[in-house]
Amino acid sequence: MPNTDRCLFCRIVTGEIVAKKVHEDDEVVAFNDINPQAPTHVLVIPRKHIPTLDDLTTADTSIAGTLMVRSAQIARNLHLSSDGYRVVINTGEAAGQTVFHIHAHILGGRNFGWPPG
Amino acid sequence: MPNTDRCLFCRIVTGEIVAKKVHEDDEVVAFNDINPQAPTHVLVIPRKHIPTLDDLTTADTSIAGTLMVRSAQIARNLHLSSDGYRVVINTGEAAGQTVFHIHAHILGGRNFGWPPG
Repeated sequence: MPNTDRCLFCRIVTGEIVAKKVHEDDEVVAFNDINPQAPTHVLVIPRKHIPTLDDLTTADTSIAGTLMVRSAQIARNLHLSSDGYRVVINTGEAAGQTVFHIHAHILGGRNFGWPPG
Repeated sequence: MPNTDRCLFCRIVTGEIVAKKVHEDDEVVAFNDINPQAPTHVLVIPRKHIPTLDDLTTADTSIAGTLMVRSAQIARNLHLSSDGYRVVINTGEAAGQTVFHIHAHILGGRNFGWPPG
């Protein structure tokens, strides 16, 4: 269920806050990051409010798998596949997570260095 | 099925090449990255040979979900949850993918900058 009282991304899911969506279906919503770190920088989120990767349980396997499969499909639709792209999920503040609704960053359109931050 | 003729990670799955494994079960294998970029740097791979995220199909939803759920469990077992960690999947050479068997990098034990590479 959306957690519209507190969660920014749940409010994007419901449409209460407007984001530049690039994809949405029954399970996930994808939209442009407001502070892009690459020519293409999209966030993919499940509609279900799950705060972090650390909160995933085996009952969420299907949601987590759909998040990954859809991320690949969205990257393909955004023409990122041929040149490649990076998917990043931050868990916790030290890793850079700022919104506590699980989200996969898809970054593409440039080369990426190593380490990843 | 493992692709032992050509794939380094399939050969780790079968045990033909030795890696410092931190977890293995029927679906995934996790082992230390040989060129660590953080105090903890583990790779989590499905036993099934899937070259990249871009090769995932909806039929692989369960495998992809298990990869994520197990990554979170492994991070927990490695005591990364409280301070946070970053999960990275590179797709294609420009993104830094060097072994073409899908793998999730789990990096933890330090703070992470932004952008992620």
